[in-house]
Amino acid sequence: MQITPLCPRAASEALEKLRQLRPLVHCLTNDVVQEITANVLLAAGASPAMVVAEEEAPYFAGIAGALLVNVGTPVPERLRSMQLSAQAAREHHVPWVLDPVAAGVIPWRDSEIRKLIALHPTVIRGNASEILALQGAGKGGKGVDSTDSSASAVNAAVELSRSTGSVVCVTGETDYATDGERILSVSGGNVMTTLVVGTGCSLSALTAAFCAAEKDPVTAAISACALAKRAAFIAGKHAKGPGSFHDEYLDALYAIEPQDFLGESL
Amino acid sequence: MQITPLCPRAASEALEKLRQLRPLVHCLTNDVVQEITANVLLAAGASPAMVVAEEEAPYFAGIAGALLVNVGTPVPERLRSMQLSAQAAREHHVPWVLDPVAAGVIPWRDSEIRKLIALHPTVIRGNASEILALQGAGKGGKGVDSTDSSASAVNAAVELSRSTGSVVCVTGETDYATDGERILSVSGGNVMTTLVVGTGCSLSALTAAFCAAEKDPVTAAISACALAKRAAFIAGKHAKGPGSFHDEYLDALYAIEPQDFLGESL
Amino acid sequence: MQITPLCPRAASEALEKLRQLRPLVHCLTNDVVQEITANVLLAAGASPAMVVAEEEAPYFAGIAGALLVNVGTPVPERLRSMQLSAQAAREHHVPWVLDPVAAGVIPWRDSEIRKLIALHPTVIRGNASEILALQGAGKGGKGVDSTDSSASAVNAAVELSRSTGSVVCVTGETDYATDGERILSVSGGNVMTTLVVGTGCSLSALTAAFCAAEKDPVTAAISACALAKRAAFIAGKHAKGPGSFHDEYLDALYAIEPQDFLGESL
Repeated sequence: MQITPLCPRAASEALEKLRQLRPLVHCLTNDVVQEITANVLLAAGASPAMVVAEEEAPYFAGIAGALLVNVGTPVPERLRSMQLSAQAAREHHVPWVLDPVAAGVIPWRDSEIRKLIALHPTVIRGNASEILALQGAGKGGKGVDSTDSSASAVNAAVELSRSTGSVVCVTGETDYATDGERILSVSGGNVMTTLVVGTGCSLSALTAAFCAAEKDPVTAAISACALAKRAAFIAGKHAKGPGSFHDEYLDALYAIEPQDFLGESL
Repeated sequence: MQITPLCPRAASEALEKLRQLRPLVHCLTNDVVQEITANVLLAAGASPAMVVAEEEAPYFAGIAGALLVNVGTPVPERLRSMQLSAQAAREHHVPWVLDPVAAGVIPWRDSEIRKLIALHPTVIRGNASEILALQGAGKGGKGVDSTDSSASAVNAAVELSRSTGSVVCVTGETDYATDGERILSVSGGNVMTTLVVGTGCSLSALTAAFCAAEKDPVTAAISACALAKRAAFIAGKHAKGPGSFHDEYLDALYAIEPQDFLGESL
Repeated sequence: MQITPLCPRAASEALEKLRQLRPLVHCLTNDVVQEITANVLLAAGASPAMVVAEEEAPYFAGIAGALLVNVGTPVPERLRSMQLSAQAAREHHVPWVLDPVAAGVIPWRDSEIRKLIALHPTVIRGNASEILALQGAGKGGKGVDSTDSSASAVNAAVELSRSTGSVVCVTGETDYATDGERILSVSGGNVMTTLVVGTGCSLSALTAAFCAAEKDPVTAAISACALAKRAAFIAGKHAKGPGSFHDEYLDALYAIEPQDFLGESL
């Protein structure tokens, strides 16, 4: 299957829609990345809200613009809330994104991830080791980190998309999004992204934000990647280490305008 | 009712007392803002401690200088701990501050907030949409963000203070604190505050810190606002986006001295 | 007993081993410091993973390079997970580090800390008030902050090491690590470390990382301190307050090379 670089105009238009809508993104995410996830969404132009209890999360999922479910630090109560919220999102036609953190590493977690995939996420976004593991083609990463290249997981992403009906987005040196028929890609970014916790997790939240604004989830997912890669590239020019990179990344997400994508290859 | 700008000398004296006492502030707050809340308290000159379990939080509330209760990500066990801690604070004459995050948005949460208000917080600090909703005069904000101006909520703040007996502080472009008889205000700040998660939540923690040091809770609450607004103003002069603003804000909270308030209008 | 400054070559070699191994560090830590803990480990050259549920944490402890247990915000379910994970670590010969946050302040927490010490941590790292309290020689600190100097706790550290069989590391202006027979020390650092939440907690995580790479836990613990003190010293030269110090600290952890320790006294 042919891989098509994302058209700059599509990325520009998707960001334009995001900035106009300023979508409310409901985040059910892990304990480690709550703050960076909220700050990435705010900097990019969305409105984050972390609503977690079973008593209110499903209600809130139904009134949000999009839902993120990230299983980075799952506990049974939170997983129940995630399942109920995913169901509510689906019933109210709210797009939702699943981030299957560390899929392939721990058997218990893998079975919980499968239950969430059965609830039809709009997009599944993971690193190469996670996507390979979900497709039964890998041995899992090193904890939460990938030990495979994103290019090596493209075929698994296509197959996973076909078997689940979800758009699958696999990120790394190059990012890919596929609905099993098309594959869109973006390159760029900066390797220091891997030294700041939550850049991947918050990219899943950004993907949810774009899904609220852009109807085609393949375009939405890869446009989120394009924004993140561009911000990382800019941050990398100014940062002297991962501490300053974190701030430069947020500053760049805030400063990037839709027209900045035009006239560049992605 | 007349609105009186906070007297610079009062703000200066309140900060002086805070810096001398270095109060221990017990924080029961939400999952997203734990780190910024602790760092804001440390930078401003207080000593934060997050003690959350039902088994120890009520004990700790009784020996702390002040207590913060923030319902940003409530779950039943944590709410029980909050209620027991608020009761313990009251029994030991420890001031406590309630931050009613997202009041007016979710029915379940609203009923939990009402139970906490019945435990007589020293100060209730919220944004305009939250205060309007608590007073039955608004329709709630967009998730955790306000969709109303603080000026539009001043009357609701006065009424809420009269009906609850708590000092009410409503923050936004201008901040107001009232005990139902007086209204004090401060202006300034920087709009980028709204793009950094936890600036509002940590202001509630600062309010608790000031309540430990300054006996009059109206003066304490509005002095906390004055410090935050001054720090945000300074940060806004140096920051190029929300990432750098976060650090500049902490640096400014640390650098501001009591005498800096003198000779300026607030 | 004589106190010996850490030999620069030993610190250099320990960091060299850490950078080569890039160990997977399993962190069971408190709600406040999750993000800084992960970022400190990433910047220093380790691979963090926070796996918390009872259903998966013990399994993961057995496959990690080292385990951190920090009781900063303990709740019963999490404590159970910590106990099971510590047992699993021990069974699989995985080194584990205990950070007894706020020991001596709250009776309930003290009894939980004692249960964890009974599971034979490889290293116990705390501030002076915590180590004194564990040895029955102090009255506890101010919440999570020490009110005693690290020098005043050296004898208690030696006694605690002898009575528990764990290496004990007490940190402050000077840091000490002892197995009850030797005492190694490092000095330096910067006092602004005390104004950034999580610098102590993440030092315990760094200690775990070094324990995965360096077989002698006294050398591992004090080498972690040496790295942290050097990074804090560098950060202090550039920072204008605790906000910028946080980022400079991470940047310095990333930039420090093993050979940087050579030719300097520690």
